[in-house]
Amino acid sequence: MEKAKHITANRKPNGEGVVLERIERIAGRVGVRGAGVRLGIGDDAAIFRGTKGFNQILTCDWFLEGSHFLRDKHPADAVGWKCLARAVSDIAAMGGVPRCFLLSLALPESHTGLWLEEFLGGLRLAAKQFECMLIGGDTTRRRDILVNVTVVGEARTGQAVLRSGARPGDILFVSGRLGEAELGLRQIRQSQRRANIRDPLLRKHLYPAPRLALGRWLAERGRASAMMDLSDGLSTDLPRLCAASGVGARVEAAKIPAVRLPNQVSAKHGTDPLALALHGGDDYELLFTVPQKKLRRLPRSFRGIPITEIGEVTHEKELLLVDKVGREVRLPNRGWDPFRQHR
Amino acid sequence: MEKAKHITANRKPNGEGVVLERIERIAGRVGVRGAGVRLGIGDDAAIFRGTKGFNQILTCDWFLEGSHFLRDKHPADAVGWKCLARAVSDIAAMGGVPRCFLLSLALPESHTGLWLEEFLGGLRLAAKQFECMLIGGDTTRRRDILVNVTVVGEARTGQAVLRSGARPGDILFVSGRLGEAELGLRQIRQSQRRANIRDPLLRKHLYPAPRLALGRWLAERGRASAMMDLSDGLSTDLPRLCAASGVGARVEAAKIPAVRLPNQVSAKHGTDPLALALHGGDDYELLFTVPQKKLRRLPRSFRGIPITEIGEVTHEKELLLVDKVGREVRLPNRGWDPFRQHR
Repeated sequence: MEKAKHITANRKPNGEGVVLERIERIAGRVGVRGAGVRLGIGDDAAIFRGTKGFNQILTCDWFLEGSHFLRDKHPADAVGWKCLARAVSDIAAMGGVPRCFLLSLALPESHTGLWLEEFLGGLRLAAKQFECMLIGGDTTRRRDILVNVTVVGEARTGQAVLRSGARPGDILFVSGRLGEAELGLRQIRQSQRRANIRDPLLRKHLYPAPRLALGRWLAERGRASAMMDLSDGLSTDLPRLCAASGVGARVEAAKIPAVRLPNQVSAKHGTDPLALALHGGDDYELLFTVPQKKLRRLPRSFRGIPITEIGEVTHEKELLLVDKVGREVRLPNRGWDPFRQHR
Repeated sequence: MEKAKHITANRKPNGEGVVLERIERIAGRVGVRGAGVRLGIGDDAAIFRGTKGFNQILTCDWFLEGSHFLRDKHPADAVGWKCLARAVSDIAAMGGVPRCFLLSLALPESHTGLWLEEFLGGLRLAAKQFECMLIGGDTTRRRDILVNVTVVGEARTGQAVLRSGARPGDILFVSGRLGEAELGLRQIRQSQRRANIRDPLLRKHLYPAPRLALGRWLAERGRASAMMDLSDGLSTDLPRLCAASGVGARVEAAKIPAVRLPNQVSAKHGTDPLALALHGGDDYELLFTVPQKKLRRLPRSFRGIPITEIGEVTHEKELLLVDKVGREVRLPNRGWDPFRQHR
């Protein structure tokens, strides 16, 4: 029976001390302006000082070997990047700013060397990019590689954008292109080898970019009435936003910015871009609604990321998909539910 | 490849919706006075509003089947209680007050019924007892039962007690009795059956009680110069406090409030109470140091919990144990390190 340990300053010649030393090296410096961190790694807990006039946003995410990544196919560096990126995406989805995070890591002893170094390399890059400081966590030994990340973000009081604010008549938007991450995942599954981190087709699956700047812009300008991030696929996530808001939606298939398939891919896999865009997960794009009277002040792209109208919010609590010849069909919910066998 | 889900208000007839519904039932009501929770389960993230004049304390803890509990021997109810209690204990160790927590839960489908109900029953009791509200988390399906808990607490600015404040001459104290949890664990290991939740010998192992009131009292009155909780055993945790403070310590074996063995137990197991007290983990008692000039204002017990002087902080960076005949020996570090094989 093991007991898990806090990340602590205690050094031991072998074992946990070495793991903690590696982890501590990527922790940010306490006292950095704006981060709010008063005490980082090395005590029973970390201390954070909330910014005046802001609320704290809290979210956590599993990232588990076999469920969310494959030890032999996903580069450790991408595992490190993505475990933080997907949790930070929830902060983006509220229109918040990430501040700091806790890392819970369980590892086999065989992975406390090179694998851990690469994992921490990816994590450090993500932490730097998202300006989110590692301040604590918990490590233990385990046969499987298990990761859990908790992120603390902040949003100015009253500015966080919830899922529940959509009203009939509001227009539905998504950022970026949908289905790119799912296409990348399929490529990786079909390959026998470890994924090539430079393959552009895999980029969105391996190194997703949470839409922090866009989410914050929408929240600060009060443009979006409701918002969430697309983690499980449009056909699973849109019903959640609608349920939270007590509304329905009508989506036009022709308007959905679906992944563009390179010729060799479409031939090889016989993949339908619309199906990838509707049901593929892990895109971490933003899905948001905008009241009609605020439409004029919404750009078509934001810092290079396209913003696309895909339909509207309806009074009837149904989810309809208008197909390319104008027929209305019910939008099937085929995104991912971990407790249900499907696909 | 599964994708984990946030705890969300979305309902599905089967699968994750049912799990979430059960979990949501134990979540606290948003807006309860003092809790600071502005938005609970059901969105991309939770929203918390820090109390004016307080800092936030953040900690997370693994609680994994096979590593921290045994599926067939530990009652689900105790698993629920303990996963929160041990994380809350870190808040107690800083002298803080718990506010809210996030629950990450991975479960086999077979455990989404009765087991989950019992687990949540224990968790709800703990949440009520510690006045700590469930505000979010993440659930997924998994062969093993995996739990990770993040707790947010608060301490008045400048009042949190760190590990690093011990100074030579300070007196070392512990709360309660040490080794009781380890004795309980041994009983459970030796038994073939599921643990009886009413067995008083198992109480401390199954339902540890974080020393919140004592920790807070010490912090608010400024009595303790350094503090931590005993999760991995005195012989492992004391070196951590000393390392953080840059000091050593001299502990008197005769003073350590070791577990009292019932006659039948000592005969049956041949167990040494001092060894249990030194190296046994999971007690979640407080270890703290008090400057000599503040000694007079320290009671011998606090709300029924004994407070016992066990030694003193020294300038020399060694850990010495004075045995019962007055000999000084080096204190062997034999508590738990998950990355080292021992015991």
